[in-house]
Amino acid sequence: MNNFGLNLRISIFGESHGKSIGITIDDCPSGIELFVKDFEEDIQRRRTGAKGTSIRTEEDNPIIMSGVFNNKTTGAPITIIFENNDINSKDYSQFLDQPRPGHADFTANIKFNTNQDYRGGGHFSGRLTLPLVAAGVIAKKIIKTIKIGAEITEIGGSINIEDAINKAIAENNSVGGIIECKATNIPIGLGEPFFNSVESLISHAAFSIPGVKGIEFGTGFGSASLTGIENNDVIINNLGKTKSNNSGGINGGITNGNDLFFRLAIKPTSSISKIQQTLNLKTNKMEDLQINGRHDICFALRVPVIVEAITALVLADLLITNKKYLK
Amino acid sequence: MNNFGLNLRISIFGESHGKSIGITIDDCPSGIELFVKDFEEDIQRRRTGAKGTSIRTEEDNPIIMSGVFNNKTTGAPITIIFENNDINSKDYSQFLDQPRPGHADFTANIKFNTNQDYRGGGHFSGRLTLPLVAAGVIAKKIIKTIKIGAEITEIGGSINIEDAINKAIAENNSVGGIIECKATNIPIGLGEPFFNSVESLISHAAFSIPGVKGIEFGTGFGSASLTGIENNDVIINNLGKTKSNNSGGINGGITNGNDLFFRLAIKPTSSISKIQQTLNLKTNKMEDLQINGRHDICFALRVPVIVEAITALVLADLLITNKKYLK
Amino acid sequence: MNNFGLNLRISIFGESHGKSIGITIDDCPSGIELFVKDFEEDIQRRRTGAKGTSIRTEEDNPIIMSGVFNNKTTGAPITIIFENNDINSKDYSQFLDQPRPGHADFTANIKFNTNQDYRGGGHFSGRLTLPLVAAGVIAKKIIKTIKIGAEITEIGGSINIEDAINKAIAENNSVGGIIECKATNIPIGLGEPFFNSVESLISHAAFSIPGVKGIEFGTGFGSASLTGIENNDVIINNLGKTKSNNSGGINGGITNGNDLFFRLAIKPTSSISKIQQTLNLKTNKMEDLQINGRHDICFALRVPVIVEAITALVLADLLITNKKYLK
Amino acid sequence: MNNFGLNLRISIFGESHGKSIGITIDDCPSGIELFVKDFEEDIQRRRTGAKGTSIRTEEDNPIIMSGVFNNKTTGAPITIIFENNDINSKDYSQFLDQPRPGHADFTANIKFNTNQDYRGGGHFSGRLTLPLVAAGVIAKKIIKTIKIGAEITEIGGSINIEDAINKAIAENNSVGGIIECKATNIPIGLGEPFFNSVESLISHAAFSIPGVKGIEFGTGFGSASLTGIENNDVIINNLGKTKSNNSGGINGGITNGNDLFFRLAIKPTSSISKIQQTLNLKTNKMEDLQINGRHDICFALRVPVIVEAITALVLADLLITNKKYLK
Repeated sequence: MNNFGLNLRISIFGESHGKSIGITIDDCPSGIELFVKDFEEDIQRRRTGAKGTSIRTEEDNPIIMSGVFNNKTTGAPITIIFENNDINSKDYSQFLDQPRPGHADFTANIKFNTNQDYRGGGHFSGRLTLPLVAAGVIAKKIIKTIKIGAEITEIGGSINIEDAINKAIAENNSVGGIIECKATNIPIGLGEPFFNSVESLISHAAFSIPGVKGIEFGTGFGSASLTGIENNDVIINNLGKTKSNNSGGINGGITNGNDLFFRLAIKPTSSISKIQQTLNLKTNKMEDLQINGRHDICFALRVPVIVEAITALVLADLLITNKKYLK
Repeated sequence: MNNFGLNLRISIFGESHGKSIGITIDDCPSGIELFVKDFEEDIQRRRTGAKGTSIRTEEDNPIIMSGVFNNKTTGAPITIIFENNDINSKDYSQFLDQPRPGHADFTANIKFNTNQDYRGGGHFSGRLTLPLVAAGVIAKKIIKTIKIGAEITEIGGSINIEDAINKAIAENNSVGGIIECKATNIPIGLGEPFFNSVESLISHAAFSIPGVKGIEFGTGFGSASLTGIENNDVIINNLGKTKSNNSGGINGGITNGNDLFFRLAIKPTSSISKIQQTLNLKTNKMEDLQINGRHDICFALRVPVIVEAITALVLADLLITNKKYLK
Repeated sequence: MNNFGLNLRISIFGESHGKSIGITIDDCPSGIELFVKDFEEDIQRRRTGAKGTSIRTEEDNPIIMSGVFNNKTTGAPITIIFENNDINSKDYSQFLDQPRPGHADFTANIKFNTNQDYRGGGHFSGRLTLPLVAAGVIAKKIIKTIKIGAEITEIGGSINIEDAINKAIAENNSVGGIIECKATNIPIGLGEPFFNSVESLISHAAFSIPGVKGIEFGTGFGSASLTGIENNDVIINNLGKTKSNNSGGINGGITNGNDLFFRLAIKPTSSISKIQQTLNLKTNKMEDLQINGRHDICFALRVPVIVEAITALVLADLLITNKKYLK
Repeated sequence: MNNFGLNLRISIFGESHGKSIGITIDDCPSGIELFVKDFEEDIQRRRTGAKGTSIRTEEDNPIIMSGVFNNKTTGAPITIIFENNDINSKDYSQFLDQPRPGHADFTANIKFNTNQDYRGGGHFSGRLTLPLVAAGVIAKKIIKTIKIGAEITEIGGSINIEDAINKAIAENNSVGGIIECKATNIPIGLGEPFFNSVESLISHAAFSIPGVKGIEFGTGFGSASLTGIENNDVIINNLGKTKSNNSGGINGGITNGNDLFFRLAIKPTSSISKIQQTLNLKTNKMEDLQINGRHDICFALRVPVIVEAITALVLADLLITNKKYLK
């Protein structure tokens, strides 16, 4: 069930250490200009290379397999793949017996009856967010004038981000963070009742990003402490502009023309080089677990562009879907 | 797009002041015992009648239109309707010109080109959670031994719940709250990668409940402040039992056999009797808005049983879907 | 899995002898005028009362439960039900042991583990085509200027239709027939590659009508005997008008602007009053089977308006879906 | 909308003269043995090389990009691609102005606003049936003991197949044919009411194969000429075995345990080297059309293995879906 979307559908495939990872974007409108270089900026933002991110060095070159002709989308499915080259799979076999705390090692083992590709997290790897970013680049072209920006606002509970990361590095530990996303210049009326509200679709997509553990729209959890008079956003012009934006730009699940705003909680990376305890499933004894391999100290740093991608995908889908309301 | 589910699909219909509201549960397994009285307890919990809830008095009698024969499900679609009787629609016509802050009045007006049934919130009304609760009753029978419990833990930022409500009543105001939901005795392996993780499906359904503005699983937003060593849940036996439960019972989007746990933020009721400002769309002037009619002071009080319902629906769907992995 | 459609979705429910049968039409555009009387003509055509059709007398009054306000569609789901009143269920219990040849008695028994509502064919009854016809009435309003006409062209292999029916009546037998459907004034470009060609969607819907056993588009099976030069339709103007119409108005699964044309084979009614043999599942012996009850001698007579309905539904869905190609 | 399936979903992508064509099979059970050599036989059957088929010589080597590890399916999406190498695209540019009779040239041009990849039929090419065949190989492994066999039974209206092809070759013409498909050893109970009958799903998939213009199940169009007593299949043992098989193994849309049987009408190849007339869209004049390039004289010859593939895919999907009925 690796697909998502109503009228702009994405299907994702691939494993961290397999031949390739990729994505198919179906039902993309035809006639959109698309060059390989268009992907560069967002792919680079996801890769980072910043302090606190993995040293795995993939070229991350998108290969467009279909759906583009003369540098324009054709209306047929667009499949984009990325090859996996910098693979070091010997690091991973131990986790079949020693499931890593916080990982899918144990759950995937049971779900797939030990047939899953366990190398590098396999299909559960954060590497699969790379094709998501590629799809996001196309989605951003569909939504045109809507602008989306996501950024890290906290790491390890602190806004002093570099210090928090340095501390985690020093301790062989990892650290989580908060991401905020805002989309501006949004038309009124996106979102489909009853089950496909803007919040439903964005949260559905957001929780597909490995490591996301919470989401709130507008004032979110803060609203639970407010009274109605405090939380209600007063409409002040006939374009629906409101004085405050506690709703995060959504009423009744539908965009109200104000900025769409939401926040995401990202957990700390589960793979840490600090020694932990885990059960050895073979011996049924608690053992020390030493995780080697290349891991992000703080993968939250790489997530903003992924959040932009899923937001663009949802908004592009809703824009296309909303055309059915045209006379 | 009023349907939800993979292999147990629900479709919702109706408006607050129309002839009826209802739901169709499709692909329900056959042979499940079902009597009208089975719905009573959960419907009563949603109705409450407690201080702080609306005085609209509907009988809320479920009428089973199809899919049940000799008090057992047949495998054909189960349609359940509820009639709307205690209707007072004259209260609502003013909101076409004077959109209520925090409501779907303005957004629905634009989306549906003024054709929506505006009476009592129409299709956006919280009344549509009643058929959700009915579907939840059936879902709870499908999940059998899994037990789900949701409860209010905070109102208006305080655990002194009755005081918070009395204060809101006294001020002609309203107030939000926090709901926690826990499901126990969950099998390992529910949740479908990549896009249908347990978190994705539960959040998708949860944000369909009017007024939900945030969701977090396990330690959620708290995890963003933790380090890996603090947040990782150490596996301590071969059934996957963990020492802590920061993950909320989910790894890689898949249930790990520990308790499923999540929290929801519910905003304060938008309709308050206290006078507010809003734009009059006809005169294009800011005006005082006096909302009459019957409204919950704190609709969060009615939400726990709805949260149980959507959780049961998602888990029942995933249980049925998971059968495909059987040999 | 009782739903169908891409962007105009129908969900069907009900049993022949249950409380009611009905349909939900989701994602219908808002603002379409709809009165109860609009359903009369097509419902009457399905009912017939002609020689050769059942004497079950239901009033077949559509009850609009939701989605219509001030006689216009609102954009919310439209649920329409029909009550079952003229029920005589004692006729059917025998078929649990003595499955009727040509019926779903045996297959439903196994699929639903004997929990199906066996009375009057239950959910498999031709009566469920009544809500389909109601949905078709709405779909015909969506497609506006496209005109659809279906008619009987053969009964029992003969164009002398009344004689064929009289013969079947005299023999306590039943008889099948051929229906042709033509839709005119169709825009170019409906149909979605790869799997949602016009042929795929119409055949999918058509084979949901009980008793349909074959479908062919344009010259259909006849084309298999032709050469390319004979079968190719030469384009003669820049609106795509072709000299012949062997394709039935479809190229590459997409409408080409010429008349959409297809033919359906309808089998003879399985329930006949003539004595047949069947196995008694209890005694495991072959026995004479006497089927009483009220049955059509030739239910093909009632099918044309149902074929129009499913055609209108598919075309309305494709028209709505095609809007995504708009700039 | 290039996907198909309920619980075993395929997504197809690619164009005839693009970089590659491919397919993703999602929700495939884990643990199925799969080697590259498993694809050889069916791919070879589709390729033929027999008299009357195209001389395009592609290696048609399947490249498994994901979803297989240690030669077993993992449960993650399986993506298989085929490269396009033997491409000669200069043959096709003329058809933008001179749409070929019987082709999607004209309809695709309008639908995709001239952005489609027109080379070699682009996404509409019969070449896309190659990944379908590959998916079929996997589906055949899922259905295990069910055996499917499809074969040509008529070409050009005649059972003297070689003569019919030689005649078409001699005339620079093409010719259609009839294919019959039978599946044996089918369990009782496959097929999902109301809209996902076995006939609905198989016809939906079959009409996705370019050139299919008709389908009939069991006696099909012949049944329309029969009486009930002639057409009814008498049940003769408690496994549901029937004396005749006019139903084609399906009652009420559900398999009855007898052989599944259906016939397909395949039109003659539209591209013929014989000179035809067509409109020049630029000059708006009727002109002679000379089609060069490599085309099948009778592509029906290549279709049997494709029909087996779509049948296997539908049956595999229904087998997986049917597991939900397990206690």
